[in-house]
Amino acid sequence: MAEINESFVATARSTASKARLAFRSLRSSPSVARNAVLLALANRLTDSAVIERILAANAQDLEAARSGGLKDSLIDRLKLDAKRMHDMASAVREIASFPDPVGEVVQGRTLASGIRMIQKRVPLGVVFTIFESRPNVTVDIGALCVKSGNAAILRGGKEAIQTNLALHGIFRDALSQAGLPADSVQMVEDTDRSLMQAFLQQADLIDLVVPRGGDALIQFVTEHSRIPVVKHDRGVCNLYVDRNADNDLVLRIAANAKLQRPSVCNAIENLIIHREYPFAKKLLMGLSQEGAILRGDDESVALFPEMERIENPDQEYALEYLDNRLAVKIVGSLEEAVEFIYRYGSAHSEAILSRDEEAINRFVASVDSAAVFVNCSTRFHDGGQMGMGAEVGISTGRLHVRGPMGVQHLTTTTYIMEGEGQVRI
Amino acid sequence: MAEINESFVATARSTASKARLAFRSLRSSPSVARNAVLLALANRLTDSAVIERILAANAQDLEAARSGGLKDSLIDRLKLDAKRMHDMASAVREIASFPDPVGEVVQGRTLASGIRMIQKRVPLGVVFTIFESRPNVTVDIGALCVKSGNAAILRGGKEAIQTNLALHGIFRDALSQAGLPADSVQMVEDTDRSLMQAFLQQADLIDLVVPRGGDALIQFVTEHSRIPVVKHDRGVCNLYVDRNADNDLVLRIAANAKLQRPSVCNAIENLIIHREYPFAKKLLMGLSQEGAILRGDDESVALFPEMERIENPDQEYALEYLDNRLAVKIVGSLEEAVEFIYRYGSAHSEAILSRDEEAINRFVASVDSAAVFVNCSTRFHDGGQMGMGAEVGISTGRLHVRGPMGVQHLTTTTYIMEGEGQVRI
Repeated sequence: MAEINESFVATARSTASKARLAFRSLRSSPSVARNAVLLALANRLTDSAVIERILAANAQDLEAARSGGLKDSLIDRLKLDAKRMHDMASAVREIASFPDPVGEVVQGRTLASGIRMIQKRVPLGVVFTIFESRPNVTVDIGALCVKSGNAAILRGGKEAIQTNLALHGIFRDALSQAGLPADSVQMVEDTDRSLMQAFLQQADLIDLVVPRGGDALIQFVTEHSRIPVVKHDRGVCNLYVDRNADNDLVLRIAANAKLQRPSVCNAIENLIIHREYPFAKKLLMGLSQEGAILRGDDESVALFPEMERIENPDQEYALEYLDNRLAVKIVGSLEEAVEFIYRYGSAHSEAILSRDEEAINRFVASVDSAAVFVNCSTRFHDGGQMGMGAEVGISTGRLHVRGPMGVQHLTTTTYIMEGEGQVRI
Repeated sequence: MAEINESFVATARSTASKARLAFRSLRSSPSVARNAVLLALANRLTDSAVIERILAANAQDLEAARSGGLKDSLIDRLKLDAKRMHDMASAVREIASFPDPVGEVVQGRTLASGIRMIQKRVPLGVVFTIFESRPNVTVDIGALCVKSGNAAILRGGKEAIQTNLALHGIFRDALSQAGLPADSVQMVEDTDRSLMQAFLQQADLIDLVVPRGGDALIQFVTEHSRIPVVKHDRGVCNLYVDRNADNDLVLRIAANAKLQRPSVCNAIENLIIHREYPFAKKLLMGLSQEGAILRGDDESVALFPEMERIENPDQEYALEYLDNRLAVKIVGSLEEAVEFIYRYGSAHSEAILSRDEEAINRFVASVDSAAVFVNCSTRFHDGGQMGMGAEVGISTGRLHVRGPMGVQHLTTTTYIMEGEGQVRI
């Protein structure tokens, strides 16, 4: 590993130290002060002068993105307008309305020794998040961190830097207005990867890293971080159509799972069809008509010859397309579908469409993924849909949190042990 | 970083792949089969022929330890006898008697979409634990992993290798007898650090690493692991004697917290005394009489001149002595005590002795440690004492688990989402 430039290390340490100090105030701040920050932020996000300022910054980013040749879909994600600003404000107001996770009693009991034990939620500490393009993530994650009493260090993508800095400016104003340290939310201005690497070494000052992004980013962070990581990683999600699936649902759910928003992690990449499902050909035709770009094994190509044949299954079935491509596999049994999922899936979201209770139970018990969907779309694997409000990301790891990461997962716990002189014998 | 020898990588991958395969069976194994393994193991641990075999292996380790000049206290930790074997069996039987954490419903609700969401506990996967000397840890951790449906890879210390291999032999027998894969619990026979490093790279096969040991081990693991780590790290624990502490309790609790078992992580290293606590001199004399080797700042040395003076506070107050030494600090206020704890402590266990409710509340709210003790000994920071039965370790990290790590913390969760055709709009 190359040595990191000393000035990057100095910047990382100084930012992280400021965050640490801010955390000392935040962790004992009352709920009402943290909510006041969020309400002040939401008010600013709908203030016309502020909107004008943010959109001007955003225009600079868009200009740079266009001249840099960024893909249209990415430019669309980057673009803000008054409507999106109002949506951001609504999300922040919703977060403010959540119950405070800090102080929640997880358990309380009197132990054999007579000591009264209370386990309570406390903030995690300093959270470093790395994300790309969409500027609303800046506001969402900052708001979730403040809500849960954590100090946040935000490192957004280069392509959104002007927008992010402008949004961060109003975050600081809102913090100051509510009497909390402005350093509670900091934005990393330099998007150099070596600086990110310098941050990843500060295990004594930073408690958690959350990377949201492509494979290369996740791999870089996993390799270089000495800080615990909660990954928002690939979703190679699979939909299995059982032999007696309800034909009225199949096309609707498959199309929704693939096409409603193909660029997100909970969209499916593979469609697995039981050989005895009688309407496979109709399903493939329907999906193609709705815009899916199908590719498949020999058996599915035989059913629907317009499809491209998959030449290298070991590679293609493991791909996260993030577009309209959908890979098809015909199997002889539910067990074969489960094996396929273990082999190629990323343990994110799997679905079964079936009317057979016994088959459903077998599928649910056999796959080992963050979420399993029965007769509904994988697109519901989402913090908002699952009743957690906004989310920091969807964790693909198995530790600390699996699935949507909400405010509760931005806490740890402490034990308070009250006695009257007990000693250990 | 030096390249790791290829044969080490091959060994690590082959061991981890076998564990992964075993996990596929374990994760869907019934509770009764996992408990049967533990009962078969406990029966063997109290079988006289087995005891003889294990003690013979242990004698080899003790012989090597003595000729290698291992410290007496470590030799004592290494030594097994029939009584310790029976204690191990009792611990295993207790673990068998716990409710199964697998399958526990964490939450269940019907979402706005009408989807019925159930969040259930499932095993974590493959757990790699690294530990030193005490052979009962081999049995405890193996038993906790099997109980919770996880495959375990155990890497004990070199000094206990013969004992560990012998214990592992009976573990394999117990697994086979109960019809579960013998590879559910594997022992790493080669204690070379490069092999450990090769294991730490297998993030696609291993889900969790738990290191228990000294600073050097923890640092090595944190630096080299690409797998999530739950650390069982240093305990620089502090006891604060407030100005109006109950004099009847102070010496008893301080002596217990320091001297009842000085070599463990929840024993105190620093004694902080409020300047206005009237019986400070008597306390220091009493501790000294009970065997504590005191050292302190100028003010405490003035009270009790037999004490050694601390020359380098920044170094000494941050030390985990693990023996009878106890560092003393006199402070002018509770706030100064809290600052001292933030500066030198390791956020493991802190205690306050006071009769003043308001001071107690301020202390509990201000320190940010895994456990805070009020008028009782820090020695209660222990899975057994806190009602969790045996423990994998005491987590000093803030993610996933903080404090004692019991069977519940060897699980993750999965969401089961049952619908009747819902698609995302």
